[in-house]
Amino acid sequence: MNTPTWINGCATDQLTSADRGLQYGDGLFETITCIDGRPRWLALHLQRLRRGCERLQLPFADFEALGAEIAAMAIDAGRCIVKLILTRGPARRRGYRPDGSESPTRILTRHEWPVEAASVTDFRVGISSVRLGMNPLLAGLKHLNRLEQVMAQSAMRDAPLEEVLMLSSAGQVIGGSMSNVFFADDSGLFTPALEDCGVAGIMRQLVCQAAMAAGTAVQVRAVDPRELPRVREAFVTNVRWGVQSITALDGRALTRQSHARALWRLIDAADP
Amino acid sequence: MNTPTWINGCATDQLTSADRGLQYGDGLFETITCIDGRPRWLALHLQRLRRGCERLQLPFADFEALGAEIAAMAIDAGRCIVKLILTRGPARRRGYRPDGSESPTRILTRHEWPVEAASVTDFRVGISSVRLGMNPLLAGLKHLNRLEQVMAQSAMRDAPLEEVLMLSSAGQVIGGSMSNVFFADDSGLFTPALEDCGVAGIMRQLVCQAAMAAGTAVQVRAVDPRELPRVREAFVTNVRWGVQSITALDGRALTRQSHARALWRLIDAADP
Repeated sequence: MNTPTWINGCATDQLTSADRGLQYGDGLFETITCIDGRPRWLALHLQRLRRGCERLQLPFADFEALGAEIAAMAIDAGRCIVKLILTRGPARRRGYRPDGSESPTRILTRHEWPVEAASVTDFRVGISSVRLGMNPLLAGLKHLNRLEQVMAQSAMRDAPLEEVLMLSSAGQVIGGSMSNVFFADDSGLFTPALEDCGVAGIMRQLVCQAAMAAGTAVQVRAVDPRELPRVREAFVTNVRWGVQSITALDGRALTRQSHARALWRLIDAADP
Repeated sequence: MNTPTWINGCATDQLTSADRGLQYGDGLFETITCIDGRPRWLALHLQRLRRGCERLQLPFADFEALGAEIAAMAIDAGRCIVKLILTRGPARRRGYRPDGSESPTRILTRHEWPVEAASVTDFRVGISSVRLGMNPLLAGLKHLNRLEQVMAQSAMRDAPLEEVLMLSSAGQVIGGSMSNVFFADDSGLFTPALEDCGVAGIMRQLVCQAAMAAGTAVQVRAVDPRELPRVREAFVTNVRWGVQSITALDGRALTRQSHARALWRLIDAADP
């Protein structure tokens, strides 16, 4: 693959198999969208990464230099995606326990903005049979343990769907396999709480802020799948899709897109 | 680190950061003990690996050649540990979804048998506050998503403990952070069912078989932590420790070791 890759600042894609990122999924990642050679919402990505490092006690501190490195990879690349992986680094001994003296590995790769398979006007979302294990210690983080998402995406391979919603093992709606989800019904806008599982997306945060600014607070709460038939509008969010209206949810057509359009206009305009 | 490493049959520890094992923890591992230059219970390790490949739809088939490779790495090394990681291989495109044409990566490393920190006569086991998310699709597999175990081992760093038991998010006892667990009370021997989480260990399987052969069937069932005060004997198992008696469980001394000793004698004698 011709994917520009920098590992700890060197232009290489080779790293040691002793890295704890591979051994245990012991690390974090961020997927950063770049427009006109400039990373978007970089401060928010670094903020989430910092929270992840704290939670995993991953000894990395130099977020400023990392931000500059991400910017350097994006410059001159126009519209692209930079993926960052930050692992706890090579294992110093065998076994799960870190010894606290590990030296983290940072991996940056630059990717072309993919051609979306779906037209934005026909975005069908199903419900995955793959559920998410619940762990409050890891909830919200964009960590490297992603087998559940791999299984969910594998299972939808032959289905005419652009995304699937995943439920927690307790049966509550959490979000898409690679996105967060928002709903609107007669009571207003709401999105699943992520205290037990799920990834707290940057675009989710921006949507909540934009809604608040527009005078429509988003309720962050437990969402039961039995509520879905009452939903009038729904949209998924991530930094690549922005705010993407769902046109069919679990087979039922949804035509309203008023919230999604207004919110995306606000978010997009605030960071031109 | 001076760790002999073979990746896809080549003596190197370098692999591409595009490998899905690193990107998503999309792979499996086995930790194989070797004595006198010979891997022990190799057929059982390969059997579990095969089940894991089926469950993850990881397109690997050549288990016979892999077994020979593991044996070749162990030969002349006396007493050692061979770790195998099998990933889905380098990503062909960005995103969770495998395209089905991936070419798996196999990584073999040889390690010295570690000097055990604990004396086998003083083996204290606590209860971890880190819980295990429940996912029946992944339960039992030795896959690469191991952040929960990393967190549990990190948390016990300063505690005078050799192992911790982990509960599921539903509050049932599942096993040790790197072992399975068995208990004995007045009703007989029992071990946690692993339908929702946990790793189905090779030594756990051997213990169940040995107990059956000795006329003492092990009950495999849900184990509530409130049962622990009634337990008279308890032991943890993995291929390195064998059958390891617990001398203190959650602070309470346990002195009986009759089951553990008898079972290990049977297992050890059956594979000299």
